[in-house]
Amino acid sequence: MNAQLRIGIVGYGNLGRGVERSIALNPDMRLVGVFTRRDPDSVRTVDPAVPVRGVDELDAMQDEIDVLVLCGGSKSDLPEQTPQLASRFSVVDSFDTHARIPEHFAAVDAAARAAGTTAVISTGWDPGLFSLQRLYGEAILPQGETYTFWGRGLSQGHSDAIRRVPGVAAGVQYTIPSDDAVARVRAGERPELGTRDKHTRECVVVLADGADPDAVREAIVSMPDYFEPYDTTVRFVSAEELTRDHAGAPHGGFVIRSGTTSDASSQTMEFRLALESNPEFTASVLVAYARAAARLHASGDHGAKTPFDIAPGLLSPKTAEQLRAELL
Amino acid sequence: MNAQLRIGIVGYGNLGRGVERSIALNPDMRLVGVFTRRDPDSVRTVDPAVPVRGVDELDAMQDEIDVLVLCGGSKSDLPEQTPQLASRFSVVDSFDTHARIPEHFAAVDAAARAAGTTAVISTGWDPGLFSLQRLYGEAILPQGETYTFWGRGLSQGHSDAIRRVPGVAAGVQYTIPSDDAVARVRAGERPELGTRDKHTRECVVVLADGADPDAVREAIVSMPDYFEPYDTTVRFVSAEELTRDHAGAPHGGFVIRSGTTSDASSQTMEFRLALESNPEFTASVLVAYARAAARLHASGDHGAKTPFDIAPGLLSPKTAEQLRAELL
Repeated sequence: MNAQLRIGIVGYGNLGRGVERSIALNPDMRLVGVFTRRDPDSVRTVDPAVPVRGVDELDAMQDEIDVLVLCGGSKSDLPEQTPQLASRFSVVDSFDTHARIPEHFAAVDAAARAAGTTAVISTGWDPGLFSLQRLYGEAILPQGETYTFWGRGLSQGHSDAIRRVPGVAAGVQYTIPSDDAVARVRAGERPELGTRDKHTRECVVVLADGADPDAVREAIVSMPDYFEPYDTTVRFVSAEELTRDHAGAPHGGFVIRSGTTSDASSQTMEFRLALESNPEFTASVLVAYARAAARLHASGDHGAKTPFDIAPGLLSPKTAEQLRAELL
Repeated sequence: MNAQLRIGIVGYGNLGRGVERSIALNPDMRLVGVFTRRDPDSVRTVDPAVPVRGVDELDAMQDEIDVLVLCGGSKSDLPEQTPQLASRFSVVDSFDTHARIPEHFAAVDAAARAAGTTAVISTGWDPGLFSLQRLYGEAILPQGETYTFWGRGLSQGHSDAIRRVPGVAAGVQYTIPSDDAVARVRAGERPELGTRDKHTRECVVVLADGADPDAVREAIVSMPDYFEPYDTTVRFVSAEELTRDHAGAPHGGFVIRSGTTSDASSQTMEFRLALESNPEFTASVLVAYARAAARLHASGDHGAKTPFDIAPGLLSPKTAEQLRAELL
């Protein structure tokens, strides 16, 4: 067996915690440490033996780390961190602001090429695995339509919106694909579906003391952009029930390509994720792409990459011979 | 736009016919001709304008063809044809005898490397797209199990077996995934499932004149290997009904990876195909990989490849920039 891949984690929230757990499940990898902008003493890792250091200590560690897994947010952390760290390390991120991917790619690519590192951006599941399915679907069935549905899943942005409504003590929001829309797509109807046709929204709310449930419900369902355009249901629960039944971060969804290959033949490709922990799954995808990043770097293939650029075999710890014999 | 890719089809049964249809849906490609071992005058193409020639005419056409799509059978055609033609052309095949893939790869690789061509083997859906899902699933969720289910689909081998039973005038056999097994896998139970637990078999039979239905049914359901190990149902229909309702070649199935990323979190990845025409879909996958073969060849990447070795972006007619902006 080759030497283990040496991985560093930059940023330690739910995603970083998931990366730590995932590395522990991959015997060809070893976690060198967690690097944080917070006070290292304030960070509690899953395994207390994992070293936690300040990000500035990375400067001295270029020879001790093969790939950094970047676990910051797409809004302000990654646009800055990914190019900056790619100028010294091979890196992987899960940058997920779809509209800004081209500029993020350009910035990271310039830094990585200049430094001779390999930087894989926008891994995870959307962008990431869902993007791959959109690509395979369109390339194989050029005459067709692609549909992406999200959920059943917890939406952080919409949960925050609920919690800003007066009279709401706590709450979460689930995005739910419309059964009817999914059934029509699976049946090969290729319907035209607007945003409001594809998903419904379910809000699970704990009322503040003395709040009027009808007023709270009305304030939520009529909220422009967030809830008004959707079929929204509001369900009131106790604080205990919220903690007991709604503490997880489930998510998922599906990508369906519905196409035809001749007048007579309709064909359907579907990829589905049902995730009990969104951050742990995203972390697992990041870690598999960290393996690919190290291999690309070792083979002299530098610059920015996305999942579209990476041969699937590079994600697996198995050799090409093993993969052909066992999985093809 | 670049010049169109020039494609040749070798072998013209249902698969070759599907490749012809698929090329017509891809504006970046052009069908140079169909090459057959039969009398060319006896071959009826979908588009009568397509030139049909003897395979021996390929010798003089190396400068006129970018990629040959090989549409012969895995049993006797491809083991001979793919290495032979790879020594003169870049090629794509759908070799599907899982156990013999390593030796097929070795023979094709030697021929293609010596000749400086690029040969993509074992595309299609299983092996092919299902293999990719097995790989992504295992690499992303190393702690888990992978399940492959086939169907609902027409099985050629089992249909042939039915037709050899005395008293059977005609018939087809469908392989059907067991609802119960699928439900248990989707629920994250990770059951141990033998072959007989995963699928049931449905036989649709036209009786010969005067045949005894009970004797025919008994002969089918007790047939060793083919039907005895399964829950098998036999349904008798008229010759008209068989022709009207069972002339197609539907198939499909799914690959499910059920894994955990921590004690608390079970995660499910599922890829599903529902195909009204198995050969037309397989043909569409071959054609997308023909595009990848041409690009790999143009970039100097020669030798044998499988879907595991091919970056997804190479399958699409879009540029890397377009893919990042539109599909990531």
